[in-house]
Amino acid sequence: MRSIHVGLLGLGQIGSGLYKLISRKSSFCERRYGVRFEISKILVKNLKKKRFPGLNSRLITSDANQILDDPSIDVIVELIGGILPAKKLIIEALRKGKDVITANKALLAEEGEEIFTLARKLDRQVFFEASVGGGIPVIKTLREGLSANRIDSILGIVNGTCNYILTQMSHGGMDFDAALRQAQEKGFAEADPSFDIDGIDSAHKMAVLARLAFEQPIPFREVYCEGIRHIAEQDITFAKDFGYCIKLLAIAKREKDGIEARIQPTLVPKDHILAKVDGSFNAILFDGDEVGEILLYGKGAGPEPTASAVMSDLIDWSKGIESKLPADGEKPLKIKSISTILSRYYLRFSVLDQPGALSKIAGVLGKHNVSISDVIQTERKSGTVVPLILLTHHVHEKDIREAIRIIDGMKTMIRAKSRLIRIEA
Amino acid sequence: MRSIHVGLLGLGQIGSGLYKLISRKSSFCERRYGVRFEISKILVKNLKKKRFPGLNSRLITSDANQILDDPSIDVIVELIGGILPAKKLIIEALRKGKDVITANKALLAEEGEEIFTLARKLDRQVFFEASVGGGIPVIKTLREGLSANRIDSILGIVNGTCNYILTQMSHGGMDFDAALRQAQEKGFAEADPSFDIDGIDSAHKMAVLARLAFEQPIPFREVYCEGIRHIAEQDITFAKDFGYCIKLLAIAKREKDGIEARIQPTLVPKDHILAKVDGSFNAILFDGDEVGEILLYGKGAGPEPTASAVMSDLIDWSKGIESKLPADGEKPLKIKSISTILSRYYLRFSVLDQPGALSKIAGVLGKHNVSISDVIQTERKSGTVVPLILLTHHVHEKDIREAIRIIDGMKTMIRAKSRLIRIEA
Repeated sequence: MRSIHVGLLGLGQIGSGLYKLISRKSSFCERRYGVRFEISKILVKNLKKKRFPGLNSRLITSDANQILDDPSIDVIVELIGGILPAKKLIIEALRKGKDVITANKALLAEEGEEIFTLARKLDRQVFFEASVGGGIPVIKTLREGLSANRIDSILGIVNGTCNYILTQMSHGGMDFDAALRQAQEKGFAEADPSFDIDGIDSAHKMAVLARLAFEQPIPFREVYCEGIRHIAEQDITFAKDFGYCIKLLAIAKREKDGIEARIQPTLVPKDHILAKVDGSFNAILFDGDEVGEILLYGKGAGPEPTASAVMSDLIDWSKGIESKLPADGEKPLKIKSISTILSRYYLRFSVLDQPGALSKIAGVLGKHNVSISDVIQTERKSGTVVPLILLTHHVHEKDIREAIRIIDGMKTMIRAKSRLIRIEA
Repeated sequence: MRSIHVGLLGLGQIGSGLYKLISRKSSFCERRYGVRFEISKILVKNLKKKRFPGLNSRLITSDANQILDDPSIDVIVELIGGILPAKKLIIEALRKGKDVITANKALLAEEGEEIFTLARKLDRQVFFEASVGGGIPVIKTLREGLSANRIDSILGIVNGTCNYILTQMSHGGMDFDAALRQAQEKGFAEADPSFDIDGIDSAHKMAVLARLAFEQPIPFREVYCEGIRHIAEQDITFAKDFGYCIKLLAIAKREKDGIEARIQPTLVPKDHILAKVDGSFNAILFDGDEVGEILLYGKGAGPEPTASAVMSDLIDWSKGIESKLPADGEKPLKIKSISTILSRYYLRFSVLDQPGALSKIAGVLGKHNVSISDVIQTERKSGTVVPLILLTHHVHEKDIREAIRIIDGMKTMIRAKSRLIRIEA
C-alpha cells in the first residue's frame, strides 16, 4: 500500500474536519484508490489549546520548519486562512519542492498571482478546490469538466451567511437585524459578520473563479463589492410584487470591452434557478460557449463539505492529476469600472407625496436616458412619505447614478437616500 | 505542438458536433492545453450520404479496420450509439491497444460490464462523460469531485424530452398528447418517442451513474422502469393542489438491504430544487456522506453540449487523467425488487360516487397498512364518476399494490384503473 504523508498547517474547524475525515475514510481510500493518507505533522499556533478527542497529539508542532523541512512529507495542506503567515508558509513549501493544497480564498484572491507565478516557475502545483463553494467541485468543473468551453459569465451565490439572512428576510418576514441575529445564533454568521455581509468573502471567491475562467489576473481591488446591510424588508416585499427575489450575487462577465467583476445584492426573477437556492446553500452558474448554462449547487461551507473538497485534491494529487493554471489568455482584458456597466435597476425613492412627484422623478430619469419599465406607488396620502418603486430597462450605471444624485438633491420632496438594486438574469 | 490523432466512429448529430467543435476550438486547445486534436479518420455507414459543409470528405471510410488498425491513431471516439456494431468496435479497439471515449449509455448500461472488465484486463481506458447529462460533468463529479464521498443516493432528471413534456403539461395546461406533439415539433422528441417517454433512456443513464456511485455492477434488466404515458393532466393539477409537481425521476439509493434503482414519474415538493428544473434541462442530485446534497444542472442533450463532454474526455486523455472504474465495493448489494421499496404515494381512484365510497377505500387501504395523510374529494354528485385523490404516509409497495388490486376489483364503485404515483424528496 502506497502511503502519502501530509503536512497539515492549521487545526481550526476545517483542519480538524480534514483530520477526522482522513481517519474516518482510511479504509475507503485504501480500497478505492490504493492509497493510505497519513497526516504526519500538524502546525498549530497554540500548543496548549485543548483539541478534539482522537487527535494524536504527538503530531502537533508550533515550528513550521519541522514540517516544511521534513523530506518524508509529500504534500502540504494549508488550512490556516488569511494572508499571513499562510502566504509565507505556502511560498516556503513551494520553494522546498512541495506541492500545496489550500482552501485559502482570501490569499488566492489578494496575492494569488505571486503564488501561481512562483509555482509555475518551480514546476510545482497549487490545488484549491476548497477555496470556493465548500464541497461543490466548482474548480474541477471549471478546470476540467468544462475544459472545451470559453466561459463567458459566472453568476454565483457563494456566501451562505448572506443567503441565509436574505432567505429568512424573504420567507420568514424578518428585517435584516433579526435575520442576522438568527444566523449568528444558528452558527451561520460570525460575531463580527462584516466579512460576510459586506461581500468581501464573496469577492474573494469570485476573484478565484474569474481568474480561472477568464485566464487572466483579476486584481482584487478592482472587484466592485457591495454587501447586503442596506437591504430593507420592504425591498424584499416590493421585489416579490414584481416577481423577483433578492440574492447576493457574485457576477463576472467577459464583455468585448472588458471584464465585469462585482458583488451585489441583486433582483433575480423568481422562476430563475438561482432564485431557488435558499438558506445556507451555495450555487454557481457558468455560461460556457459550447455547453450553455451549467449550475452547481450544494453546501458551501462547514467542516465536512470543505474537508471533502480538500480530500478530493489530495486524491487527485495521489493520482497525478495536475492542478496548473492554464496559460494566460491571449490579451488580458481590463476590469471595467462599475460606472460603465449596463444593467437593469430597481429604484426605491422615499417621496413626500405631493402632486407631480412621480413626474418630476421620471423627468430627471428620462433626461439621463433611464427608461422605466414598471412602477409601484403605494397608497397616497398627501403630505406623508411614501415609497415609490421603479424598475428600469437597461441603462448605464453612471447615468442612473447621476440621475439619483440629482433626485436626492430635491430635499423638499425626497426624504431619505434613494435605494438602487441591480436586476440580473 | 503535440498532435493527438482521433479515430471517430459515427458521424450523426453528435459526431458532426464533435467534428465542428474540434475545428472551431483548435487554436483554443493549442493555447490552453498545448495540444492539437486532429480527426484522422471517420467511420460512416453510408459513404454517399450528403454531409455538412466544411467536412473533409477524404477522412470518411466505411471500413472500420482502416481506423482500428491505423497505428497513428491515438484514441477512438465512438458516437454511433446502440449496442451493435458499437460494442464490437469498442472491444476491437481495446484489444488493439486503443483507449476509447464513448457517449453510448445504452451500451454501457446493458453490456458495460463486459467492456469494463476487458478494459481493466488490458489496462486500457474507457471514458464516458457524454453518456449522461450531455454537457454536465456528472461522471467527473462522481469519479473525482466527490472522490472522498460514499454516495448514498442519486435523484436525477436525465431525460430532456420527458421533462419538456411534463413542464408543458404543468405550465402550459396541455394534456400528454398535445405536449408530446409540441415536443416533436420543436425537435425535443423523436417521431417514435417511446425510448424517451417509456423511461428506457433514463434507465440507461441511471444504470451508468449507479454503477459508478455504488461501485458494483447494476444489471440493467433489474432496474424498474416506468414512463410518463399514463400521467394525466388532472394528476398534474391535483399534485399542484397538494404542493407538488410531477417529474420523471431516475432514483438510485444505497439501502442496508440492497440497492433501489428505478425510473418513475414522481411527485416532488414544489420548493425542492429538482422542482425548478424545467423544460429540456437535466439535473442530477447526489447525496454524499461527507458533502451532503450536490446538484448539477444544465443542458442534457444537443450536439454542442454533448460534444463539449466528449471533448473534455479527449482533453483529460491528453493530460493523462485516467478513467478507470474504481475497484468493486466490498460486497455487492442485491438490486431490490420494486415491490419491496418503501415510499409515499399519490393515489387517484375513479369512483362512482355513492355513500360510503371513501370509507370502503380507506378500509381496504387500512387493512393493508396504508395510512392516509391527505385527501381531495372533488364536488360530489351522487351517481357520477369523480376522482378521489389520496396521499399516503410511507408504506411498502407490495402492500399498496395489493390494496389497489382489491379496490380495483370493486367494479360497482371503481370505474377506471386506479393510478399510483410515488412521492419523493
